[in-house]
Amino acid sequence: MIKGSQSISFEQAPYLITAASVVGEKEGAGPLGSLFDFVDNENLFGEDTWEAAESRMQNKACAIALGKAGLGPEQIRYLFGGDLLRQGIATSLGVEAFQIPMFGLYGACSTSGEALALASMSVAAGYGDYMLAVTSSHFGSAEKEFRFPLGYANQRPLSASWTVTGSGAFIVGTAPSSVRIAGVTIGKIVDYGLKDSQNMGACMAPAACDTILKHFEDFGRRAEDYDRIITGDLGYVGQSILFDLMRKRGNDIKSNHNDCGMMIFDQQMQDTHSGGSGCGCAATTLAACILPKLVSGEWKRVLFVPTGALMSTVSYNEGESVPGIAHGIVLEHAEI
Amino acid sequence: MIKGSQSISFEQAPYLITAASVVGEKEGAGPLGSLFDFVDNENLFGEDTWEAAESRMQNKACAIALGKAGLGPEQIRYLFGGDLLRQGIATSLGVEAFQIPMFGLYGACSTSGEALALASMSVAAGYGDYMLAVTSSHFGSAEKEFRFPLGYANQRPLSASWTVTGSGAFIVGTAPSSVRIAGVTIGKIVDYGLKDSQNMGACMAPAACDTILKHFEDFGRRAEDYDRIITGDLGYVGQSILFDLMRKRGNDIKSNHNDCGMMIFDQQMQDTHSGGSGCGCAATTLAACILPKLVSGEWKRVLFVPTGALMSTVSYNEGESVPGIAHGIVLEHAEI
Repeated sequence: MIKGSQSISFEQAPYLITAASVVGEKEGAGPLGSLFDFVDNENLFGEDTWEAAESRMQNKACAIALGKAGLGPEQIRYLFGGDLLRQGIATSLGVEAFQIPMFGLYGACSTSGEALALASMSVAAGYGDYMLAVTSSHFGSAEKEFRFPLGYANQRPLSASWTVTGSGAFIVGTAPSSVRIAGVTIGKIVDYGLKDSQNMGACMAPAACDTILKHFEDFGRRAEDYDRIITGDLGYVGQSILFDLMRKRGNDIKSNHNDCGMMIFDQQMQDTHSGGSGCGCAATTLAACILPKLVSGEWKRVLFVPTGALMSTVSYNEGESVPGIAHGIVLEHAEI
Repeated sequence: MIKGSQSISFEQAPYLITAASVVGEKEGAGPLGSLFDFVDNENLFGEDTWEAAESRMQNKACAIALGKAGLGPEQIRYLFGGDLLRQGIATSLGVEAFQIPMFGLYGACSTSGEALALASMSVAAGYGDYMLAVTSSHFGSAEKEFRFPLGYANQRPLSASWTVTGSGAFIVGTAPSSVRIAGVTIGKIVDYGLKDSQNMGACMAPAACDTILKHFEDFGRRAEDYDRIITGDLGYVGQSILFDLMRKRGNDIKSNHNDCGMMIFDQQMQDTHSGGSGCGCAATTLAACILPKLVSGEWKRVLFVPTGALMSTVSYNEGESVPGIAHGIVLEHAEI
């Protein structure tokens, strides 16, 4: 069952039963716009603050995922969730109403990988028939949390990414579906000493490289064994660094790599610089775009690698580096 | 293996192999002072900022726990850790050097329970021989994070708790030791609508009550089945509310209840008002005081219930309530 030092290959692979995506106006206007379950063009989701809007998004994403599966919240054994806000408050207030026993998580933009890993590990261990994994981010709340309130209208360097307003929710369980979670590779913190919070792609690319290579080693696989290797949100800057790092280690993933941060926005038309980012980026892209291709069988096996930049405003202001982390999730098409 | 709706009873119970506690000056001067593994009377642990000091504490606690077990970090399969700072930065920067694949967690002061639950679930599932659980809090960093920088010298109401400067680390694994983790009860978010961030005991007591009662129900037990039921850090105010709530539901736990927030400081001599709190409070009290009594067999079975108040400065300032969460961990003396 265990493969190598950081990975688990599930003997009885859990299934990714349903997924839901809820996004804001800019995401709805992007290349994946028609694929999301719900788009709110006001970005406030009926609430008065960006933070309350983010909680509302998580709530809505969970409700849609539950609805698609025909499950009530009382049938979910444990919930694994997180966001980018301090003290994970969007999750706490967002999922409270479901009254599902919960684990709060934080892995920056890698949290969707962390949540899917723990949910699938719990199902595979027999701890319950259904688990719920949910993450979110909101452009308004994240800019305030990490950089400046939107009202300041600060300038953004070209290496900056655009935090996705969105939440993705996933039900993982034993009931067969068309996608299974075959294994996971849990990432280590990788720190190249970079300190630029406006260039998160550069901070996260070394972690993505480390996790992908460890995954190949643990599972005895190569890039060709995957239809796609899709990182969380390295963006354009991070992708080019990832390619360089991989090539130096004798691996070329150019032909089958993509990145959620590059998929979710149209860089030229939407002025999103390096691309999308945030806990909601990889989660909504997975739910809306990646999973349907696995369900249909167009893709047979995908390595999904959400990446996170581990920093806070305080650590940034105190001059600390911005280390990265990335988790690998093996998603496979399954014949029911 | 599964008991009731929120609990797991492990067929092959993992062992709590070693524990370590690192604290600051005030904790060292308190009633448990002589029991901690390391006391830093400067509270800065050789660093320049409270935040860096907290990272250093986590690092030190992990190193001591590893040393006691005679293990190197490469022998630890996964690390589960968290703290009170925004974006869990104390953990990210504190454990980075060990290069252990990691899961970042957030459950406010309940995080030690969340980490021990996930670590023991992972060991019981066969995902690895050794897991590391670590949490921390620091009075200086937490006051700045949640209330006001210490330099403001703000007044504290009598219902306020005193954030413990400390970090506790635990190695959970398959190798037999004198304490086993027999089961867990994962808590739901319980929200009575309270909004006073300076009375966290009142915010968390309903969650503690809910988890303890659910635990009794799931395991078919009563208070008498435990030598002690020890909550995380309700403090004096929270304890009296817990007793009231339990009594209304037909349970009296007065004779065998204690609270880490009440155990770690001398309320009269140390001017700590309602008692200690923070991710480091329950963790260091467990490591230094509770586990030795389980190891010796003085106590045969303890229900350890760390409690968390789910809030942030932003949620508080935006008028949101402060819901609570509590996780139950069943610790039993084991004959080797």
